[in-house]
Amino acid sequence: MKEIHPSQKLLAFGGRENERFRESCCVENLKMPLAPWLAPLARALHLNRSLPYSRYLQLATVRADGRPANRTVVFRGFLEDTNQLKFVIDSRSEKAQQIEHQPWGEACWYFPDTRQQFRLAGYLTLVRSSSADSEREIARQKTWQELSDAARLQFSWPHPGETRTEDAAAFSPPPPDVVSPLPNFCLLLLDPIQVDRFELRGEPQNRWLYRRDSSQSWSTLAINP
Amino acid sequence: MKEIHPSQKLLAFGGRENERFRESCCVENLKMPLAPWLAPLARALHLNRSLPYSRYLQLATVRADGRPANRTVVFRGFLEDTNQLKFVIDSRSEKAQQIEHQPWGEACWYFPDTRQQFRLAGYLTLVRSSSADSEREIARQKTWQELSDAARLQFSWPHPGETRTEDAAAFSPPPPDVVSPLPNFCLLLLDPIQVDRFELRGEPQNRWLYRRDSSQSWSTLAINP
Repeated sequence: MKEIHPSQKLLAFGGRENERFRESCCVENLKMPLAPWLAPLARALHLNRSLPYSRYLQLATVRADGRPANRTVVFRGFLEDTNQLKFVIDSRSEKAQQIEHQPWGEACWYFPDTRQQFRLAGYLTLVRSSSADSEREIARQKTWQELSDAARLQFSWPHPGETRTEDAAAFSPPPPDVVSPLPNFCLLLLDPIQVDRFELRGEPQNRWLYRRDSSQSWSTLAINP
Repeated sequence: MKEIHPSQKLLAFGGRENERFRESCCVENLKMPLAPWLAPLARALHLNRSLPYSRYLQLATVRADGRPANRTVVFRGFLEDTNQLKFVIDSRSEKAQQIEHQPWGEACWYFPDTRQQFRLAGYLTLVRSSSADSEREIARQKTWQELSDAARLQFSWPHPGETRTEDAAAFSPPPPDVVSPLPNFCLLLLDPIQVDRFELRGEPQNRWLYRRDSSQSWSTLAINP
């Protein structure tokens, strides 16, 4: 695959929105060769930017009993110099336990304005406070620092999923430190090995399958919708 | 649980939209006791009705290799007299094979206008053309008949997921019969046993867990967001 610097691709999206877009999805930080699905995904993010919920996607994992789980997560940009998607999760949540048990996930991302779907199947890495990987720990800290105050505060709330805490004060804790993440704050990384891209617009609809092989090379195949 | 006729619940949603709403989500057909999550779900559907994609949700299943799969599906109403959600799928699709292998699924449904999420975990039933269950076969036929011409036509298209068929004519087949479903047309039913309802609005956010026990009774528990 010919390497194209991401900034060139971003230029193709044109206009004054670029700065805000780069800031919001961190594509400017990608210095490695882009996966072939990344430019269409970045373009979808750009074209749907007027909808705040175009940054919401659904992440499927597998429970210990072998049944699937599925919930909405918020896209937090790409891990610098990689094709990996960033999310934030609470180590006390069920999904953290599920990922420890079965580290494969599939994210389904539907973009309403452009009527596109990206299914991203890949390996999940949970970066906990105890991570021995210093680069990932730095990424975890940086992601914490980039959160809104409201988002950070939720990691100080009572244990998610347990019987509702009646004490209202428990949901108004003192704001946590803005620099050092709370111990239960995890960075979650999704490293796709297969991406199924689907466009509802078109006669007929268009669909592509991107696959990464063991040598980290990506193939692209047009498939039937 | 006190039984309330669905029509009474629907009245609470008020206004001229009721007819269209009843038509669109088929709640009027529910004659059995309503599951406690059904009224909030019907209300979410109603309040988000201006967004056509509020009828799109993400269904997670498990692949034969134990990894999760996730894709957008379209809600086609409730199966008459039940709390089961209807979808339509092609027997040639990967998800049909996944469901045969592991019949548990979890649907994640995010409603953008009201900022609500419903996670519906339950048993999946694939109603194929060979179904020996006459009631389900009738439901399958009725669902086929209610599809748009364009939706029906897709079941005549080339095998989904295979290398793209270059012959454009293959995507313009003669319209299939509007009464008798094609053999590859399946009705898919999701019978929830657990529903996790989450409302982003609220200080703090609100969340409830609904569970069905072995006697088919539902419990409701307020849980921490």
